[in-house]
This record gives sequence, C-alpha cells and structure tokens, in this order.
Amino acid sequence: MTQFHGIFPYLVSPVDQTKGTILEASLRRLVEHLISSGVHGLSPLGSTGEYAYLSQVQRNEIVRITVDQTAGRIPVIAGVAGFSTADACHQAEQYAQLGVDGMVLISQKMYPLSETAQAGYFQTIAEAFPEKSMTIYTNPGLLGDVLPISLFNELSYIPNIEYIKDASSNTGRLLTMINTFGERVKIFSASAHIPLLVLKLGGVGWMAGPACVLPKQCVELYELATTGDFDTALAKQKEMWQINEAFTKYSLASCIKASLNIQGFEVGSPILPQEPLNEAAMNDLRQIIARLD
Amino acid sequence: MTQFHGIFPYLVSPVDQTKGTILEASLRRLVEHLISSGVHGLSPLGSTGEYAYLSQVQRNEIVRITVDQTAGRIPVIAGVAGFSTADACHQAEQYAQLGVDGMVLISQKMYPLSETAQAGYFQTIAEAFPEKSMTIYTNPGLLGDVLPISLFNELSYIPNIEYIKDASSNTGRLLTMINTFGERVKIFSASAHIPLLVLKLGGVGWMAGPACVLPKQCVELYELATTGDFDTALAKQKEMWQINEAFTKYSLASCIKASLNIQGFEVGSPILPQEPLNEAAMNDLRQIIARLD
Amino acid sequence: MTQFHGIFPYLVSPVDQTKGTILEASLRRLVEHLISSGVHGLSPLGSTGEYAYLSQVQRNEIVRITVDQTAGRIPVIAGVAGFSTADACHQAEQYAQLGVDGMVLISQKMYPLSETAQAGYFQTIAEAFPEKSMTIYTNPGLLGDVLPISLFNELSYIPNIEYIKDASSNTGRLLTMINTFGERVKIFSASAHIPLLVLKLGGVGWMAGPACVLPKQCVELYELATTGDFDTALAKQKEMWQINEAFTKYSLASCIKASLNIQGFEVGSPILPQEPLNEAAMNDLRQIIARLD
Amino acid sequence: MTQFHGIFPYLVSPVDQTKGTILEASLRRLVEHLISSGVHGLSPLGSTGEYAYLSQVQRNEIVRITVDQTAGRIPVIAGVAGFSTADACHQAEQYAQLGVDGMVLISQKMYPLSETAQAGYFQTIAEAFPEKSMTIYTNPGLLGDVLPISLFNELSYIPNIEYIKDASSNTGRLLTMINTFGERVKIFSASAHIPLLVLKLGGVGWMAGPACVLPKQCVELYELATTGDFDTALAKQKEMWQINEAFTKYSLASCIKASLNIQGFEVGSPILPQEPLNEAAMNDLRQIIARLD
Repeated sequence: MTQFHGIFPYLVSPVDQTKGTILEASLRRLVEHLISSGVHGLSPLGSTGEYAYLSQVQRNEIVRITVDQTAGRIPVIAGVAGFSTADACHQAEQYAQLGVDGMVLISQKMYPLSETAQAGYFQTIAEAFPEKSMTIYTNPGLLGDVLPISLFNELSYIPNIEYIKDASSNTGRLLTMINTFGERVKIFSASAHIPLLVLKLGGVGWMAGPACVLPKQCVELYELATTGDFDTALAKQKEMWQINEAFTKYSLASCIKASLNIQGFEVGSPILPQEPLNEAAMNDLRQIIARLD
Repeated sequence: MTQFHGIFPYLVSPVDQTKGTILEASLRRLVEHLISSGVHGLSPLGSTGEYAYLSQVQRNEIVRITVDQTAGRIPVIAGVAGFSTADACHQAEQYAQLGVDGMVLISQKMYPLSETAQAGYFQTIAEAFPEKSMTIYTNPGLLGDVLPISLFNELSYIPNIEYIKDASSNTGRLLTMINTFGERVKIFSASAHIPLLVLKLGGVGWMAGPACVLPKQCVELYELATTGDFDTALAKQKEMWQINEAFTKYSLASCIKASLNIQGFEVGSPILPQEPLNEAAMNDLRQIIARLD
Repeated sequence: MTQFHGIFPYLVSPVDQTKGTILEASLRRLVEHLISSGVHGLSPLGSTGEYAYLSQVQRNEIVRITVDQTAGRIPVIAGVAGFSTADACHQAEQYAQLGVDGMVLISQKMYPLSETAQAGYFQTIAEAFPEKSMTIYTNPGLLGDVLPISLFNELSYIPNIEYIKDASSNTGRLLTMINTFGERVKIFSASAHIPLLVLKLGGVGWMAGPACVLPKQCVELYELATTGDFDTALAKQKEMWQINEAFTKYSLASCIKASLNIQGFEVGSPILPQEPLNEAAMNDLRQIIARLD
Repeated sequence: MTQFHGIFPYLVSPVDQTKGTILEASLRRLVEHLISSGVHGLSPLGSTGEYAYLSQVQRNEIVRITVDQTAGRIPVIAGVAGFSTADACHQAEQYAQLGVDGMVLISQKMYPLSETAQAGYFQTIAEAFPEKSMTIYTNPGLLGDVLPISLFNELSYIPNIEYIKDASSNTGRLLTMINTFGERVKIFSASAHIPLLVLKLGGVGWMAGPACVLPKQCVELYELATTGDFDTALAKQKEMWQINEAFTKYSLASCIKASLNIQGFEVGSPILPQEPLNEAAMNDLRQIIARLD
C-alpha cells in the first residue's frame, strides 16, 4: 500500500490553443516550482486540469511531461475520466505506460447508473492496473451527483483502491466514511472542505487546485495541522481560507490559470469556450495573492 | 449581549391529536430530565418541534409550559417562523410575553425574495423586541435554499441579532462567516455539521434535535470539545456521530419522537399527515440508543 | 358531480397592512368586474391569493366577501393549504360554513412524506366534506416537488375529488393523467402550461392568476378553444401568451397586484416581506396590458 | 435553407464491445428498415446514440455507414457534442467530409459558462461549416441545465442555424421561442413534449428515439397531425404516448436497444458501464410494442 499524503496540487493544463500543443516549458517550470516548494505529490488531469477539454494526445503529453520532469522525486497521479468503461481503461493504460504512480478515477455520466453499474466501472479499471494506486473522486458540483457511501464501501475491499477525494462540501460525509471504512480507504480533502478539519478528522492530505498557486503556504498548513498545536494551525487556516473561497467563487480552471499568469507562469487561457476571468476578478485574485504569497 | 453556549436541545412538541391539546405532563418531564442532564438551554418550536404543524394556541402552550417548568434555570429560546412579517411579529410578541430569553428566527417562503426583502423580515422582528436575543436559522433542507452570507453580514450589525444556526452541512460556509463577522455574531452548530469541528472553529454550542435523546452525552461532547484534548473529543465525536446520521436518515420529528418514546417519555406520534417510523427504523434507533445511552 | 369548467381567476387578497384588514370594497369591485367579464368561477386563497401570508381571520374574510358578492352566480372554490391535516380540516370547515362550492387542496411540506401519508392528507379532508367538490393542486415551483401521478390515481376514486390543477409545466404529465384517470378526475390548466393545448387535450378549463387582469380575453380564448377552429384559437393564444410569460417572470402575487393597480383596482401591495414590483417591471406590465386589454 | 421536417429517428449505436467495432450489418439493416417505413430523416450520434460513450473512430464509422446506406434518399444529421470548441469542430469536420446534410450541436459542460461563451461555442462550429444545416439541442435532463431563449435568439441570426430541439418538457418554452424567432429558426419536438401539440404549435417534426422502434406509427402520427383532423390525431397520440412514457421511465439508450433487440434487430447492449434492462422492464416493453406495433 502506498503512503500518499500531504499536498497534491492539481496541475493546470497549459495549452497553445492556436496550435493545439502543450506549453511544455511552462508546465516543466510549474512542476519544478511546485516540487521545490515542498509539495508531496502532483495530480495532472484533474478538474483543474480541464481533462474534459483536452484531446487524448494532449492528455498524454501532459502526463509525459509531468512524469519526466518529476523524475520520481514525488508521486504523480493522473486523472482518468470516462463515460464508457472502455475509454477510461484506454486512458489508464496510456498513463500506466507513461509511468504514473497512481490514478484519480472519475465517472462521467449521461444516464442514471445503478450502484452496481457504477461499481463495475471503478472495479474494472482498478483491477486492470493492480500495480497502480487508485483514488476515487466524487464531485457533485462537476458531475451532477455524489457517489453513495455504500458504493465506496464496496470498492474499499479492492486492494489498490486506496484513497477517496470527496468534493461534496459536506464534512459529515467524511466522518461517516471514516467510521465505515476505517483504514481500508484513506481520505484526501477537497477544497470544498476546510483542509485543516479534514486532516484533524484523520484525512491524509489535500488534493488542491489552490496548491498550484500557493504551494509553500499549503505545505505549511499541512505541517501545522499534523505536527503543530491546533490554535496556530487554525489561525493559518483562517487566513488561507480566502483562496478556497476565490476558487469556489470563480470558475475553477479560469481562476487557477489566471492566478498562475499573475505569478508569471504563462500558462495560457482556459480552453474555449471557457473565458478568461474579467478584470474585476483578476484584481480580486491579485489582492488575495499579494496578501497570502 | 447574552452568553448563550453549549447544548440547546430542540424540544419535540407532544400533542394529543384527538383532543388537540399539549401533553403537558410529558413536556414538563422532558424539560426536567434535560435540565437535570446538564443542558445549557432549551429551544421549543424548532423544526424538531414541528412548528409548522401546530396551531398558534398549541405553540403558545408549548412555550408557556417550557418557560414555567424551566423557571429561569437555563435560557429558553423559542422558534418564530412566518411567511408574513406580520405573523412572525405576532408570534414573537406572544413568546416575549410568555417570558422567553430569545428567539430563533426562521423565514418561510413561497415566492423568491430579494436580499433586501429578506433582511427586512428579520430586521423588523429583531427591532420590535430589542430586549430579546435573536438567532437566525437557515436550513436549505427544510426551506429550499440557504440564506446568503452577505445577508447575515448585513444583519450582524443589529445589536440583538447575536447568533446564527446554519444547517447547510457545508462547514466551509461557517469559516467564511467567522472570517466575515468576527465576534459580531456567534455560530451554533446544527446537526448537519460535525459539532466538535464547529466548536473547534470557534462555534459556541450545538442546537440539537439529538440532544433531546442523548443530553448527557451531548453535554459531555461539548465539555471535551471545549476543555479536553482533541483526540479524546474526537473519539467521543466518532462514537456519537451515528445519532446525527440517524436523524438525517429518518424524518426529523418522527425520529426524535420515536426515540423519546423508546426511552419512555410518551411524547406521542408525529403530527398528521406525518407518519410514525416503521418497525425496522425503530429497531435501528433502539440499537443506537442502547449503544450510546 | 359538478361541471366546473372555463376560466376561474385566482383572486388576489387585498389587505390594508397597517390595520390588518381586508380592503372589502376593492375585493367586491374586483369580483363584480370578473363576473361581468364572463368568468366561469372564482378561486380565492390560491397562490395568487397569498394564502400563506394571511391570518385565518383574514382568510375567512376573503372567503366571506367573495361568496357574498358572488351570490351564487358562479361557483366559488377556496384554497385550503395546511402543513397538518388538522389545520387543513379546520380551514375547510370554515369555508364550508361560509358557503363555498368547492375547495382547492394544497399540501405544504416540511419533511418528506410517503405517498400513503400524502394520500391520507387529501383523503381526510375530502371525506370530511363530501358535499364539496375538491380540486387537488400540485405546484413544484411553490412547494418543492410534484405529486406523483400514482397518488392522483389513488385519490381519483374518492367521489368528491373531481379536478386536478397541475402547475408542473410538463404538459406530457397531463396526457399521462388523462390516459390514467379517464373521466374520473378532470384537468384544469395552470398558467405554466399553454391553456389552449390543455383544453385541446381534454382539459375543462384554466385556473388562472392572469385571468384576474385579463378576464374578457381569457374567456374569449376559452371559447375559441372549445368552439372555434384551431388556427384562430392559436393566433389568440400566441398573442395572450405574453401575459403568462410576465407572470412567470415576475413574482406571482406582486405581478398580479401590480397589474390590477395599473388598471385602477386599488388592491394594495403584496404582503410583507414581499416587495412591490420595481418601475421597470411596472412599465413592462403596463405595455403588455395596453397591448392586450 | 433546408426544409427538414417530419420524423427523424435517433439511431442507436450498435457496438461489439469485445472488439470495439460497429455492428455494421445491424446498423445497415436498421437504416434500411427506417427508410422503408417512411421516416423523413436520420440522426446518428444523438443521446439515444450514446455519443459520449463512443470513441471518435467508432463515431466516424457510425456516420460513414449511415450516410452510405442512406445514399441520399433522406437527410442525415449527425450529433456533435464537445466540451471544448476545438473538439466539436474536429468532430464536425469529419462528419462534413463523410457527407452528412446537417449536424445537431450539443454543448457539454463542466464549469458554468456565460451566455457569450456558450454562443461562441455554437457560432464557431456553425460558421466553420456554412454549407451544413445546424440544429441546436438543449436537454436539461442530460446536460444539467437548459439553454436560455435569449441565447437561441442570438444564434437565430446565423444563417445555417436553422432548427432547435428542446427537450425541456416545458412546452410553454416552445411557444415563447416561436413568438421570439418567428420563422428564423424552426422547432423540432423532443420526446419529452407531446409531439402532436408541438406540431400543432408550428413545429416541423419530431426528432425521436422512439421512432427507431415504431417508425411507421410515428410517421402516421406526423401525417395525421399535419393533414388530418385534430380529434383523429389526438386519439392516435393518446395511444402512442405510452412509448414516450416508457422512454422516460427507462434509461434512454438501454430502452431503445432493448426494444430493437425484441424486434430482432440485434443491436447489442448499451455500452458499459450502462446495464441492459432487467426482465421486468423487458416485459413492459414487450407489451407496449405488442400493443402498438
């Protein structure tokens, strides 16, 4: 069993939309910056990474560059998101060959699925890549509903399903999960939860869009949460919370790409038809970054 | 400014549905039991109290009996829930005359209301009773949507609006509130949140349906949260969480009346057309109570 | 069995909010105007009538004045809306004594109810007043969900449950109802549907907020729909549709009270905390009324 | 401007899931059967066609086979559904080269989009293929929300945006559209509406999953609606409505593939993780087909 923990930034996907190519230098520079800031892992092709807006060729490039630049210093776990089981397995196969350490599994849906059908999707992928650590991701905001805890419990008995990322904003769900699974599956905080509280409940880390922008501060929060006294950690969390709020207020990928551009990373615009943030939102982000960075 | 804090059970409303009268002896016995168990306040006519299902005569009786039996030992704050501002003020006037210490204000809605109109509702009631401490209650599950934080912030400048009860299940909203209001308005946990975490964030207590059934345990959790070490409190919270889960799973008033009947309090059935719990649910509750009580 | 059909305006409730009294002269004048315009029935205390915002004393006054002024010329069916079955029966008893011809039954809800419990609510009221014609009203916009067709089918066997008003906007639901009930229960159109199409499907009339404002035109539409050729009726319906659109766009009671005030009926403001329409909306209504009236 | 009208069945996508290949003989036989039954057009890669569950290679095969078998006898309009504008244009380019007559444009969404951004998506695709007739498709059930009428109005001025398919179930929206666009954009009924009523409102046809299963009956309904008397058409519509109900009750692609398999077309199972219908649902379908076929 892997021991993933700590801060896993969700990487943006920098794309030259005229040519359709990946901005390799920008991505390498971002990866290097994040690793040198102390993050504990990297997650390309999450929702921050605009997975649904990329071609499979672009996705493979993102993973290839990320794995290559990381060079084994920290784990890389790539997002796998399909409507069909076959497409998800096809994605997973390519990322496995490219050398990721694990995958974050997302189920996209057009029609209602029974719990058995949902379980089948995740189980098929997980069992096809038994050497890879799997994280199940549920996000009602993006995907329309939240996966039931009974489904997670069923999946928790599959050996390489090791982590859950639940972006429901309902922290009580996490406590029910912890009471249900015990140590069989571990919890990562999403940015819709208060990461400090998830860590205090027993969560092992935070998979975070905001950590792309404020990696040092996120790492510091993680360290205070796991080793410091509660009140110091809470003071830090209260201050940091405005970055979570901003990323809830503004459209996710637009917000993180804008923030990185403010910081000089030249990651390009969100992929069309998404729009860049307007000037008022940019100013809001500039101020938050200036206060926290 | 009042210093309300700790465990405030939401009282059920025991009614003889044939005669339409309040089961006064049952209510007095329940109040006495809760006070002797160490609770810090009492809240009649909350959603657990089926406020919408009672006539105004019945509501007044519930408040009169609760205030009389409590006899000033702990504060009593009564639920005020109206569609029209006039009806809410009319309710509040009667509870003020009956001697409550404060009120929990609920806005029922048929049509969309602007934020200004919503603010007017709460402000009119609060300013009409400047000697009474007011708690604003928002509950998307019961009332269809959640009041915006900007509205709470506007209301936070009214001197006797002192507390907020937010049943949104989104604990991050509470941190945003705390960052927005500071000490101007204090937070009570709802049962949709994990009470321990709300208390650690700076919340002052828990207004709780479950505390009708497990008052001693809720008080103990509050004490561990405020004075004990985190890990001991967390162990207690994990154990206690199943009562919050049950009250989410089963219909609120039905569940608490059933639990109290299991414990011998003879509080009657939920008010028609609501139905008593079925036998499977009763057995589930019996087991939870046996484990925790 | 009654033969209710045609245009039933939902009456507004004109209230002097300072004194809390009904504006009796305004209400009598409105009733007289509607009857002389040819409407086929009157429905006080619908959602247009702000039933939830009135005290029971005010509701009784509205019904008393409406029945008295109507003097048997056309049927009067009053809205009965309760959370508890007991309150709904209490309302119904008073309206029965005041001489209404029928009632529109609405179930308000705080907690989820089983289909059996919902059926019990309606059945209890209907069977308590077997001489009165009952219409079941479902409105997801106001009440949060739509009653299932299987529930309506169960209720269709109760002799005095004669009509359904479904404000779901899903006209296909009406066809399923017609296929399910046949003639056991008849359908009235709501303003969320296109009344002409409901009438062509077999509906018997339109219970309408807009008919308060444009009674002659609504009656003309009904007559074209039932006796004229389709194309002439459709041309009229297309022209009339803008009034349905306005009443969807603006908050219901606010919109109809504003429209009547524009026409000189002095029905007062919507009941607080609801707000009167703003000037832009008023101008929009003035233009629609000028075009159609 | 094209004159598309009448019955356009949405084709299922028959796939050999072991090999990942299209069941070409089944698809050709289905196309031939539908054309010989008198349908007026064909729409591959709609939601019935499980577009999101197919690889681009599979999609191209579906379109190639459909166009080839149709051989110009009736128009073929293919579904184009992307998250990114670039992906949608890429799909459209291939279908244009394969010889489709038009396309049905669908916007998939992960993040909220402004109306300007949404318009940009559709406009970019439409203007890139000015020779192809474009239909805009909005389906809140599948895609989470309904496109606003103001957006459709903006798009209605683009010459080759000629049709709208609105699956909202709110027939009143269609009348507002007709009043807004006039003849600039024409309406096709979706199966969530009552097709007869949409045709009587001025709609030009019905794009229909059910028409895969009951093509002759759908064509007969269309003919009665456009040339017959209303009552005869209504009797046919009432009888036919049960097929719309079945396709609402059961998951779309599962239901139509099951029905075609019952009829002997050997189109295979819905694509995993979707499940075939259970035996009770199959029996329900068998009875409906037996009654109507």
